[in-house]
Amino acid sequence: MKKKIKKVNAAILIIGNEILSGRTQDKNIIFISNWLNSTCGITVSEVRIIPDVEKTIIENVIILSKKFNYVFTTGGIGPTHDDITAQSISKAFKVKYEYHKEAYSILEKYYGKKKFNDGRKKMAKMPEGAKLIYNPSSAAPGFIIKNVLSLPGVPLILNSMINNCKKYLIKGLKVHSKTINLYTVESNISKKLGLIQKKYKRNVEIGSYPFFRLGKIGVAIVIRSVSIIKLRVVNQELLRLANSKKIEILKL
Amino acid sequence: MKKKIKKVNAAILIIGNEILSGRTQDKNIIFISNWLNSTCGITVSEVRIIPDVEKTIIENVIILSKKFNYVFTTGGIGPTHDDITAQSISKAFKVKYEYHKEAYSILEKYYGKKKFNDGRKKMAKMPEGAKLIYNPSSAAPGFIIKNVLSLPGVPLILNSMINNCKKYLIKGLKVHSKTINLYTVESNISKKLGLIQKKYKRNVEIGSYPFFRLGKIGVAIVIRSVSIIKLRVVNQELLRLANSKKIEILKL
Repeated sequence: MKKKIKKVNAAILIIGNEILSGRTQDKNIIFISNWLNSTCGITVSEVRIIPDVEKTIIENVIILSKKFNYVFTTGGIGPTHDDITAQSISKAFKVKYEYHKEAYSILEKYYGKKKFNDGRKKMAKMPEGAKLIYNPSSAAPGFIIKNVLSLPGVPLILNSMINNCKKYLIKGLKVHSKTINLYTVESNISKKLGLIQKKYKRNVEIGSYPFFRLGKIGVAIVIRSVSIIKLRVVNQELLRLANSKKIEILKL
Repeated sequence: MKKKIKKVNAAILIIGNEILSGRTQDKNIIFISNWLNSTCGITVSEVRIIPDVEKTIIENVIILSKKFNYVFTTGGIGPTHDDITAQSISKAFKVKYEYHKEAYSILEKYYGKKKFNDGRKKMAKMPEGAKLIYNPSSAAPGFIIKNVLSLPGVPLILNSMINNCKKYLIKGLKVHSKTINLYTVESNISKKLGLIQKKYKRNVEIGSYPFFRLGKIGVAIVIRSVSIIKLRVVNQELLRLANSKKIEILKL
């Protein structure tokens, strides 16, 4: 049974030399993080990007799965030699790496018996006891074992599968956010902003991010909280701060 | 004196709630990684993205600075309350967090004595013994202490500063790469590709990445090595593999 608890967090473990080497721009972090917060009220508290090295994957799966409520891995579940996520997670949890019956039959059906070669069969191998995360794009399923959910690295395919993770996740409280864009520089408001953050440190997180837009510089103040009421209160304080310093607010 | 050594690696530590929450797309990883490899022959071996939490920053700076030749931090060196990178690194290395004389005078000159307020002064505070990484965009310098280099989070500013890191870095061997785009699916070549990887495992790293282009699916085979000669040899093997399977090669 799912319980409504206050704070649920997750780590994302990006497995892939192509991201580390700077060849490929990661697009999965932003997608997973937004989906987890908006759909499940789960906060991403850490991200790691690591190479396709078995020992490194094992170490990180062990550490992150102990430290966070969930771990989402991306990448390394395809048919080629550099796809070693499933076997590494099996070793991390000291369980067999073996054919998952249902995954095997899904893939056999998808490719047809004749074309179901060794590479394709490899995609049905998972840690013993894993449950499937179905894949509506290209059949090969992801899986969950304990609190680790394994998804593919290709963003289009990952995006199509993410809703199938939902049934495995406990829901937390959604973090709401609001952005106030001010035409000023950070150092003009940093003192007052620090005082406001101090006053509401238990409930509201205030971030300050410089921006350049239409030739003008400004600061985006991002406030985040599970409480919409507290968010409104801090928003009012920020508007008062802008007013008192005669700072123009950019309406988007 | 700089020594030419074989493998030099680095970690990137992205400090910022805005990246973790999915509000902002990180652009610094890809930039730093490509610059480090092409300019200094340094390989990024791990990336971590963590929140603006002092304890977390301290822990990660200690772990990563022991594990890798260099650590590049991004974010958290501005004037606001959420900019706590410099003070956290000071604590990680158990040194004072104090005004850096040269940084102070650079900033005082940039803003003018009258406008040099507390927020701006904060940007001159660094770990004791830090050396400056000059900032041609907005004056506020980054710094290096031990093997940790701290840069700002705003990509435009970071990009303008990166060449000023060079003098602090030992050079390694550049990794060269080549991509062969094949109009096939991974599972059609996975077995042979695995054999080729096995044969050259000491010198060449082979990655396989599915792509979708102009309505057709394909596989990008990326080969990486410090040896251009070995890269050519593996490239030839891959062309033979494509030939033997009558796979069309996409020329870009």
